[in-house]
Amino acid sequence: MKPVIAITMGDPAGIGPEIIVKTLSKPLVNRIERIARPVVVGDRGVLERVARRLKSSCKIRTLLDLESIPLPRKVLSVIDLNKMDLSAFAAGRPTAAGGQAAVEAIRQAVQLALARRVAGIVTAPISKEGLQAAGYPFPGHTELLAELCGAKEVGMLMVSPPRFKKDPGLRILLATTHVALRNLPDRLTRECVRTAIRLAHEAARRYFGLRRPRMAVAALNPHAGEGGLFGHEEAEIIRPVVEQARRQGIPVSGPFPADSLIRQAFDGKYDILVAMYHDQALIPIKLLGFGRAVNVTVGLPFVRTSPDHGTAYDIAGKGIADPGSLIEAIRLAVAFSKNTPSALGGRPPEQKPP
Amino acid sequence: MKPVIAITMGDPAGIGPEIIVKTLSKPLVNRIERIARPVVVGDRGVLERVARRLKSSCKIRTLLDLESIPLPRKVLSVIDLNKMDLSAFAAGRPTAAGGQAAVEAIRQAVQLALARRVAGIVTAPISKEGLQAAGYPFPGHTELLAELCGAKEVGMLMVSPPRFKKDPGLRILLATTHVALRNLPDRLTRECVRTAIRLAHEAARRYFGLRRPRMAVAALNPHAGEGGLFGHEEAEIIRPVVEQARRQGIPVSGPFPADSLIRQAFDGKYDILVAMYHDQALIPIKLLGFGRAVNVTVGLPFVRTSPDHGTAYDIAGKGIADPGSLIEAIRLAVAFSKNTPSALGGRPPEQKPP
Repeated sequence: MKPVIAITMGDPAGIGPEIIVKTLSKPLVNRIERIARPVVVGDRGVLERVARRLKSSCKIRTLLDLESIPLPRKVLSVIDLNKMDLSAFAAGRPTAAGGQAAVEAIRQAVQLALARRVAGIVTAPISKEGLQAAGYPFPGHTELLAELCGAKEVGMLMVSPPRFKKDPGLRILLATTHVALRNLPDRLTRECVRTAIRLAHEAARRYFGLRRPRMAVAALNPHAGEGGLFGHEEAEIIRPVVEQARRQGIPVSGPFPADSLIRQAFDGKYDILVAMYHDQALIPIKLLGFGRAVNVTVGLPFVRTSPDHGTAYDIAGKGIADPGSLIEAIRLAVAFSKNTPSALGGRPPEQKPP
Repeated sequence: MKPVIAITMGDPAGIGPEIIVKTLSKPLVNRIERIARPVVVGDRGVLERVARRLKSSCKIRTLLDLESIPLPRKVLSVIDLNKMDLSAFAAGRPTAAGGQAAVEAIRQAVQLALARRVAGIVTAPISKEGLQAAGYPFPGHTELLAELCGAKEVGMLMVSPPRFKKDPGLRILLATTHVALRNLPDRLTRECVRTAIRLAHEAARRYFGLRRPRMAVAALNPHAGEGGLFGHEEAEIIRPVVEQARRQGIPVSGPFPADSLIRQAFDGKYDILVAMYHDQALIPIKLLGFGRAVNVTVGLPFVRTSPDHGTAYDIAGKGIADPGSLIEAIRLAVAFSKNTPSALGGRPPEQKPP
């Protein structure tokens, strides 16, 4: 049986519903059908409206029984939360009701994942504005999911798609995420570097099936601080944590200057990297991603992936959003779920995590 | 007449002499010969030793008359500074004598360029250690060249090579260079952003012949600070300078989040970018450069390019250094010299700088 993947609808005012309908309509749905049984968690009314606007041939049906999901090529199955008042709905304009609907979908998907009734979650984009309008003070999915699961240590792993068969693409886990550069050196503690190394190791083993991943850590400063000339965080924060991790048996090296390190990973020298900050990871990932990079939350008790883009309010409702990154996110969620124990439809893991 | 390009030898203990000899030996020299008349400024003894070790067939001759440079395919012409005591010379180990020889070569090349006797300078790598051993407290070429020319405002422009004919590659000018990340927000003044925009505009017009370049400026913070949530430098420093530049007629926009901006430039939306810091520019440049990225100093009274790598002491003397970036640096120096007024062998500029 192919694994069941829950796809949350995201902010209804963003491009989430559109990329979902495109992905689950012909011809793209043929690619999904080969690997997964998708179920959308969201609002059926919104999806139907978007499908009509896109002139999609896909039939949307409320799912009554999670055990008997029909073939996605024949019908788009929805767990209908029925939360949206469509009179207030306009693409491109976030509302409290839309934010509320987005959060409800995530909450429901998390329950299904925790109960092992779905093999993984793929989340369409939400926005900080939407969440805040609905009274949820989270910057994004990662923090909301951690809260809903009671997970203490979660990490954001960015994956760029393979360029050719067997190419792993770039995989970079972030030690810090949405931090002003001014506050970054103080936010970059030994603790957060240690957690990032641990989570990158876990992701490499569990998700990518690498028994002994080749791991490296990027420096914070240019030229890795050039021996203290441009910064001391390498010597004071990063290097001691890397050495400690090595003593604990994690095959990690660094810190290395980020510019050459990322190039070396691209050339195949490393399986997974730890970056110190957002743009250090996102610049190369977006450059190589060609609109198909995927964001993976590591440290949750289930698989969760998402496209690398946001709600894109500026193009919502125009029918021009590209579903490529969502498709790649579904593909990775399926692949990861196969290495994750006891997920519905998943295979037993090929190797045990430590 | 093909333009005369002076190539400084760089630190003799680094890979500079090796990549120069490789570039000016067969078969690579055939590519150089088609575009330039190269002359090496450095130590003939060092070059001969390296040529012997590489079993190069190239004949090294001291140049007596700059006006009658022989075909580079027949002989490698050197302006011999005769500064090195070869008994002290060992690849991979910087010495005071080597640092002194490197500085002398640069000094001599600058004199030739200022006198318009060469069309441009291409510099092989030097190192901070080598310079300091010789008593020169400069972090690198850019600062040394600015000092030698009395240039007040110079900028480091990184250029990644074209992937196909007519592809411009990435061009990114740095607003700051070798600064610890902790000090970066304070070092990033309106003045340095303003200078960087001005120099990028000058480079686009003068070197790339773009009458109205499409220019954009990267933000400092992730998501360009997301409206002040993760940083204020976009609103307080960068945006006012961009708006001022626009009022002065420079076709520049931004600040934009660096990750999407660099991807858009790669897709051809912009001709030249201004980055706020070293790794923001160097990560994508090295990723796309494939060992052929070039560093250009903008703001000097002559053309100066260099390979994007350093002395690479760890591989010096092993014969495995890749001359690709040096060759690309020579190619760009030739191209730029054609747009630079009154350079020896250069054509008159196709358009006047402002």
